[in-house]
Amino acid sequence: MTQYTLRTTVRRPYEDTVETVRGELTAAGFGILTEIDLKATLKAKLDVDVVPQVILGACRPQLAHQALEADPSIAALLPCNVVVRAVDDASTIVEAFDPDAMMSLAGQSDDTLRAVATDARQRLTAVLAALENN
Amino acid sequence: MTQYTLRTTVRRPYEDTVETVRGELTAAGFGILTEIDLKATLKAKLDVDVVPQVILGACRPQLAHQALEADPSIAALLPCNVVVRAVDDASTIVEAFDPDAMMSLAGQSDDTLRAVATDARQRLTAVLAALENN
Repeated sequence: MTQYTLRTTVRRPYEDTVETVRGELTAAGFGILTEIDLKATLKAKLDVDVVPQVILGACRPQLAHQALEADPSIAALLPCNVVVRAVDDASTIVEAFDPDAMMSLAGQSDDTLRAVATDARQRLTAVLAALENN
Repeated sequence: MTQYTLRTTVRRPYEDTVETVRGELTAAGFGILTEIDLKATLKAKLDVDVVPQVILGACRPQLAHQALEADPSIAALLPCNVVVRAVDDASTIVEAFDPDAMMSLAGQSDDTLRAVATDARQRLTAVLAALENN
């Protein structure tokens, strides 16, 4: 099984972590274009209970535009999902679709795509590091 | 470069295709959880003009739930994006993130994930076939 996410576990409750992740994504230059409350969705559709978790669809428009110019099909992989998932009352997992894994699908041989992935990955890594440090 | 989408080109204008894709996804058992108008987003954020295109985030809750039970990290790859993109006034591309490509990242060795990917892929293939045939 490939490693396809960048991931950290923080000692902080779920709701607080969601808000902090929003702030750190914004600080790192990402907009949040979509948001799926997986717990609420699965409860509503299937009446099953899962741990609190949300998928935030993060997008840095400059990077998305460059990637789309290089490969229009990359839209099928956007936005870059950042998932926040409760572990227990005190700790929370934050994990993002790793841009390097995205590139392993879409274009290791394309200079633009590699540069975009490197930039996005550095920003997401900084977001996770900021969560660990505050 | 890997093939990571399922794709077809239909002889139909963009707006009409978007509506038809919505209907076919619903008929195939998918809900549409997110929607990103890429043209409008890139115009608003960067003042650049790209061809009309939308990312529809399709999700079949039963499949998502099974996949999450097998591998919680798979949330970072959800929902399954279906992109509709204008080619010209008369024709439109429809392409979906191929569930097989998703599984190449997430778990070729897991029976549940393989079954979910097979089911999702059959449904998406049927959606594309229906677009070609009507």
